[in-house]
This record gives sequence, C-alpha cells and structure tokens, in this order.
Amino acid sequence: MSEIYRLRRQRVIHHLKENGIEAALVTSPSMVYYATGFRSDPHERFLALLLDARSDEETLFAPELDAGAAGEMSTVAAIVPIGDTENPYEKLKARLGPSVSGLAIEKNHVTVDKAERLQAAMAGVRLHNLTPLLEGMRMRKTREEIEKVRLAVETVEKVMNHALTHAVVGMTELELTGELEFQMKRLGAEKPSFETIVLTGRRSALPHGVPGDAKLAENDFLLIDMGVVQQGYCSDITRTFIMGEGTAEQEAIYEAVRAANLRGIGAAKAGRPLSAVDKAARDEIVSRGYGPYFTHRVGHGFGMDIHEYPSLHGSNPDPIQPGLLFTVEPGIYVPEIGGVRIEDDLYIREDGTAEVITSFTKHLIRLG
Amino acid sequence: MSEIYRLRRQRVIHHLKENGIEAALVTSPSMVYYATGFRSDPHERFLALLLDARSDEETLFAPELDAGAAGEMSTVAAIVPIGDTENPYEKLKARLGPSVSGLAIEKNHVTVDKAERLQAAMAGVRLHNLTPLLEGMRMRKTREEIEKVRLAVETVEKVMNHALTHAVVGMTELELTGELEFQMKRLGAEKPSFETIVLTGRRSALPHGVPGDAKLAENDFLLIDMGVVQQGYCSDITRTFIMGEGTAEQEAIYEAVRAANLRGIGAAKAGRPLSAVDKAARDEIVSRGYGPYFTHRVGHGFGMDIHEYPSLHGSNPDPIQPGLLFTVEPGIYVPEIGGVRIEDDLYIREDGTAEVITSFTKHLIRLG
Repeated sequence: MSEIYRLRRQRVIHHLKENGIEAALVTSPSMVYYATGFRSDPHERFLALLLDARSDEETLFAPELDAGAAGEMSTVAAIVPIGDTENPYEKLKARLGPSVSGLAIEKNHVTVDKAERLQAAMAGVRLHNLTPLLEGMRMRKTREEIEKVRLAVETVEKVMNHALTHAVVGMTELELTGELEFQMKRLGAEKPSFETIVLTGRRSALPHGVPGDAKLAENDFLLIDMGVVQQGYCSDITRTFIMGEGTAEQEAIYEAVRAANLRGIGAAKAGRPLSAVDKAARDEIVSRGYGPYFTHRVGHGFGMDIHEYPSLHGSNPDPIQPGLLFTVEPGIYVPEIGGVRIEDDLYIREDGTAEVITSFTKHLIRLG
Repeated sequence: MSEIYRLRRQRVIHHLKENGIEAALVTSPSMVYYATGFRSDPHERFLALLLDARSDEETLFAPELDAGAAGEMSTVAAIVPIGDTENPYEKLKARLGPSVSGLAIEKNHVTVDKAERLQAAMAGVRLHNLTPLLEGMRMRKTREEIEKVRLAVETVEKVMNHALTHAVVGMTELELTGELEFQMKRLGAEKPSFETIVLTGRRSALPHGVPGDAKLAENDFLLIDMGVVQQGYCSDITRTFIMGEGTAEQEAIYEAVRAANLRGIGAAKAGRPLSAVDKAARDEIVSRGYGPYFTHRVGHGFGMDIHEYPSLHGSNPDPIQPGLLFTVEPGIYVPEIGGVRIEDDLYIREDGTAEVITSFTKHLIRLG
C-alpha cells in the first residue's frame, strides 16, 4: 500500500520537473491522505506535504498534536511538527531555502489569506496551480479504490434497508436521521459522507433541505439521500418512498424519475461527452412534462471527497473515460406535492462500460 | 430576529463606505447565515451575499436548487438563483456593473482559484479583506447568541451523562461514538459540531485521534471530546474517565489536568492578555512535572463555527474582552499511559468576569 503513495508523490515531482517548478505544497487533508496515507482533520491548523523537485525531498508538516499519528500513518519519512505558537510559513521557508521562485499549490484549496502569507514569507515566489494535476490523478480510480467504494455502498444500502423497516408515520425527519446515522456507525462506517438528508411531504421538494421536526405522514413522499465514509472512501445514494398508498400523480412523478435515472445510466459510456448523461435523463423528464421541475445537474464525481471532478451538467463537453466514478441522480421537485430523486453510483470500467455499484431496488416501495 | 441580520449587513456597508470600497462579497456559509438568516451547505456551488455600498443594494446569490429555501429563510429581498450550468462570476458582474474598482472578500475563505476568477471577470478589481471586520463582529457574542450556546451545552451534557451509563468494558470506540451521536439527534441537536472523539487506552494520548475498533478495557482512560450544533450554535466539551480503578499515576495526571483547567479558568478576566489563560494552565502542569506532555494551546474561540477567533495560545497578546466565547482545555498526553483532557466553555460577561457555561462535574469518575 505504501508503494501507491510513493508513486503518487513521484508523479507530482515528475510534473514539477517537467514544468520547471521547484516545489509543490499539498495542503487539502484529502490530498495529503491521497499522497501519504495520513488522514487527519487539522481544522485551522497548518498541514502540508512539501515535495521538493530539486532534491526529491519529501516533508510532511503536521500540527504538533498530530505528529505522532502522522508518524504512524504516513509513508513520508520526514515529519516536521508545528506547535500552536509557531509560524508555519517560517518553518516552510527554512526547509525550502531562500531561493524558491516557483511553488505549486492547490489553488482550489489555498485561501487568498494563506497565499498572501506564503508570498510574504517567500518574496517574489510565483504560485502555480497544482489542482489540475491532482484532480486528474484522483479522477481515475483504481480497482483498489473502487473496492473501498463498494464497501461504503454495501454499508449504506444496509442502512437504507433499515429505513424500510423503521420509517413509520408520526416519526420526525430528525428521529429517522438519528436512527440511520446510528446504523451507519454500528455497521462500521467512519462517518456519514455528508449531512444525511431525510425529507418528507412537501419538504422533499427542497433538494438541499435539512431534516427537521416535520413528521412522516400518510401519503407523503419520504426522500432519503445519504452516504458513508469507509476506509476513506465515500458512497452516495438516494431513494424515495411513499408512506402508504399515495396518489396517481406521485406514482407518475416517481416513474418519470426512475425512467430518467435508467436513461442517464444507459448514456454513460466512455467516449461520449459527460453532458450526454444529463441530457438523456433530462430528455426523459421533459418528455413527461416535468422539465421545469428538474432543477439541478444530473450528477457529480466523488471518491475520497463527496464532490470531485467531474460535474455532470448539460454543458460539460469533457469525455466520459475509464476510471471515472460519479453519481446519476435525476429528480423532480413539485413544490405543492414534494420531490423524488433516485441516485446511483457508477464506475466506468477499463472497457468503457459503466458498472452500477449501487444495487438497492428502484421499484416504487410503499411503506407502512 | 430579522432586525439583527439587517443591522449586521448595515454595519458591513458602513465599513465599506468608511473605507471607500464599493462592494463586499460574503461567501462562507456561516457568515452568510450570520448576515442573512439563511443557513445552507452549498458544497462546491456558488453562494454569496453581495452588499453594494454605492446603492445600498443587497443580493443573495444562491444555488438554484436552494433558491426556494433561501427565499424562505433569508431576510434579503433579492435572491438570484444560479443554475449548475451558469457562470456565477458573470452574473455577479452583471449585478455589480463594469466599473467596480474595489471589492471586499473573505480572504480566509475565498480560494486563490476563485479570487482569480473574480479578477478575470472584473478586470483590475482590487480585493480587500473583509475577514477582520466580520471576525471582529462575530467575536463579540450577544446574550441571545449565548442562550443558543447554552442550549447546545445542555444537550451535549445530557449526552455526556448518557456516556456514564452506557460505556462498558468491551465496547469499541466506534460503538460508543455511534451511541452518543444517536443521543445528540434524539435530544434535538442538528448535528455534532465536529467529529466526535472517543478514545481509549493509549490512544487517548492522540489529541486528534479518530475513534476506531479499539475496545474499552479495564484500567484505561476513556476520553470523550464532543459538541453539538443547535439553532446554529456550537458546544464543545471534553471529559476523561477511568474504566475501573486505574493507577495512582493516572489519578495524578487527571488531577494535574483538573488543576490546570481551574487555573486557566481563573485567569480568564477581561483586560488580561489571552496568553494569560494558556500560561496559567501550563504553569500548573509544568509545576507537576508534565510540561512536555501538554502539546497544544489551551483553547479556541467558537460560536457558529467550532473554531473562531480568538486562539488561546501562549503568545497571543490580544486582550480578553466582554463578549468572547472560548474553550479552556488543557491536557496531558503520555504515550505509554494515555491522555487526559478537561474542556469547558467560557463566556466573558459585560462586567469582564467569566461565566463557565459547561457544568458537567470535573471530579474523577471511575466507570463500570
């Protein structure tokens, strides 16, 4: 396993050499994990992997109180602890030396404030963007990574199954959320991969609504969007149920979303543009008259983070390619009735075909 | 309540006028909540409150799928939805007009990547830092805010109480974590205010360790560091217990931390430097021979976020002042034995004295 991390760091150093950049600073916790095996949540403290292309030296700067864990978990030999009263930029400068003219940073992670501090510590340094290289590397998932995703999917599907037997009329969204997150932990998940969404009734039409005190009621939709992190990798699934019988219109909405989900999945083949997935799902929903109620893109990449490259929206011309892992999650949200979303996780295999990792049934289930 | 948000926005606009800056862009979700009443988790989507000091116009840019919720929860009249395929920077430019020369942004939140996009959309715009003003405003908590914190503290202390009766030898850290987080939800918390830390045995010496499959064992420390978010505000408490009798040295470590906690709290009075709190706690630990094992600052501010200004480390000369809310959490971490941390939440009242909001006992409790 440590070999993988070493190869990833070498690839960054190779990129630096090719582009004449002296060093790179990897600072987002998930990228540090990806490149070293050290997982942590440094909050506002300074965490950084420094890769020096001049000397091939690798240094991990970690908060003093995490230095022990960093030593245990990381595959980098040199750990530099940073105390709470120390200036990390001075320590960084001491390691880099005075003559650095180019430094690659994660421009989608480093704040303006921190970039200004870097530039103050290393006068005249030019900041290059490391994000495209790292995102490009992380975008192509290996079989080993997909096995971890598969584990996270299996766990969350067991939790979804638990919902089937525990969601009852009169329960609040928050109570069901608590029950589901408890099951996640019980089944070995490290944590939810994002804030679990349990919405019922008209509230299910709020695609990013937050669970509250609303109670599950007869004939209402129940929308559950959740995921877990296991061995550092995420899962992400949405299913929508009806409490009791529901109406013919609810069923029509559900079937429109299900058909859109299937058409979106059917369009996911290497070589086509990513936009084709959104278009296929959207065409289905438009053809059924619900076009204006599908108000978001059809999906997003994920992996160690719950949102990664690519974004599956209707104007993304980038090609679908082997190694991509993304969601397909069309939805219809009618304010007076409620919302339905059905979300699966797809992996594009080496042969260019899609494997649907999620397997939870998409046939309409009436609960209670 | 909406009056508070309006006054906060006015204060920002006043600051802009005083400093000759045309507009401000508030982008961190907690600052948007602080200034508008709209709480959301936009993930990587564009969320921004634009305050234009030239026209006194206020505009909230929100992801299209959250626009409904934004309209309901926000006190800002103008909501501009942004679809997934739209360029938010162009929409922003359209609203601001072509002639903006100065824009205040949260430099501790906006990434280099986003700042470059802003500058590309508005050629020649100078970016000012809005963070000090906003942090300064948020640093002084009102009585109303403290009442919300008190609620979050009450909830988490009930959860800590639950731990007393549910932690048993043989249970894993993760199982206890799941049990505690389930109770948080059951008791009305929106979510944990950070990843709950449950560590046992030698692992308790990892101040930022992550709960795992380690089992609670006889004579081991059990360290629980957790908090909840309720009505948008955080709590944060740590208590350490012993499973069974433990040793005389464990008790000595515990009592050293308890004495340090009390001395730190005793030093918290308006007018003194923030460093005095760290120094008081540290002196106590040093005097008992455990100085090298207290490896972090004594505390941190919090509020809507779990880490806010101020940082209570030994070189912070800023004065303690009324309205501050922060933790006091000394710890001793001996690798071969384990770690003890005792953390309370303090509020500096108008008269300059400290109120300890947490009330859970700090006397050593032996469990099981």
